[in-house]
Amino acid sequence: LPGLGPRSARRLAIHLLTHRDNIMIPLAQSLTQTANDILPCRICGNLDVSDPCHICSDTMRDDNALCIVAHVADLWAIERTKNYHGRYHVLGGLLSALDGQGPEELGIPGLIDRVGESEFDEVILALNATVDGQSTAHYISDKLKPYDVKLSRLSHGLPMGGELDYLDDGTISLALNARSKLHSHE
Amino acid sequence: LPGLGPRSARRLAIHLLTHRDNIMIPLAQSLTQTANDILPCRICGNLDVSDPCHICSDTMRDDNALCIVAHVADLWAIERTKNYHGRYHVLGGLLSALDGQGPEELGIPGLIDRVGESEFDEVILALNATVDGQSTAHYISDKLKPYDVKLSRLSHGLPMGGELDYLDDGTISLALNARSKLHSHE
Repeated sequence: LPGLGPRSARRLAIHLLTHRDNIMIPLAQSLTQTANDILPCRICGNLDVSDPCHICSDTMRDDNALCIVAHVADLWAIERTKNYHGRYHVLGGLLSALDGQGPEELGIPGLIDRVGESEFDEVILALNATVDGQSTAHYISDKLKPYDVKLSRLSHGLPMGGELDYLDDGTISLALNARSKLHSHE
Repeated sequence: LPGLGPRSARRLAIHLLTHRDNIMIPLAQSLTQTANDILPCRICGNLDVSDPCHICSDTMRDDNALCIVAHVADLWAIERTKNYHGRYHVLGGLLSALDGQGPEELGIPGLIDRVGESEFDEVILALNATVDGQSTAHYISDKLKPYDVKLSRLSHGLPMGGELDYLDDGTISLALNARSKLHSHE
């Protein structure tokens, strides 16, 4: 399991075995129940107790915007900001030649179909600022070119609270190249 | 001294005292010499062995751009990117009511005069993405409004290599609000 080394795993196993009745058996039951209850949403790929998920079935949300994320964790990260009220699409990963993940594995053809069939005004590519994230964004933006939809991506630059002296050269370079105009007299 | 706790300071002091001749005395001499040699540049505020500094006196640099930074360390951070070839202005700090640093302490009137007298096409505010950094940027941009110069600031958003799942809500919110258009059919 991620984040668990052999020592911690051993400690956990012993703890569970010594508390067989009041921890181990209830944990096993609730894991089984959760495994049965939580399903991927057939529309967006989010994990929820209902299918379609509570975001896809929420009629109060904005049907004009679609936010494309790589993982369910990214969807939750954006939901935490309480700053986005549109729909989502979870790819389930990023294009990666190393891991053998191509467009089919990520369901990109299905995403293109979804955009084609829906009435989105804007599609936001909310992918990581990593090599895989940006090449996936590039691939999707290319595929969406024929559709009548505004396409945007998250801005790149200094993170909130970022101090120049502590930031890597790449980010400073990026922030310098993508600098934004404040005002001008021309 | 910054980054030195009482224990490390004691260890250093004992190390110096036990190597009096081959470390302590040479260190004292080179500190004295450096203190005498390194001067703040009268034009930009950079620290260098010459005044004006090697950046201000470099005739190969671009006279059209001025980059405003808070500290000498920020100037060096931007120089490390090798991505900027214009001039600099070091404020020596940021506006801060708490520390009692006002516009006069930072030499902002002198900066405004410098912009007024020079032929800069663009002034880039390269200040930290912190509260003090952004209020200083706002103050300077306000003061420079009457001048015929393009004003810009570093972009804010995901840092290079940034993964949504690991970023704070503020940065994601910022990157979402400042999202950039890729292409559109309107």
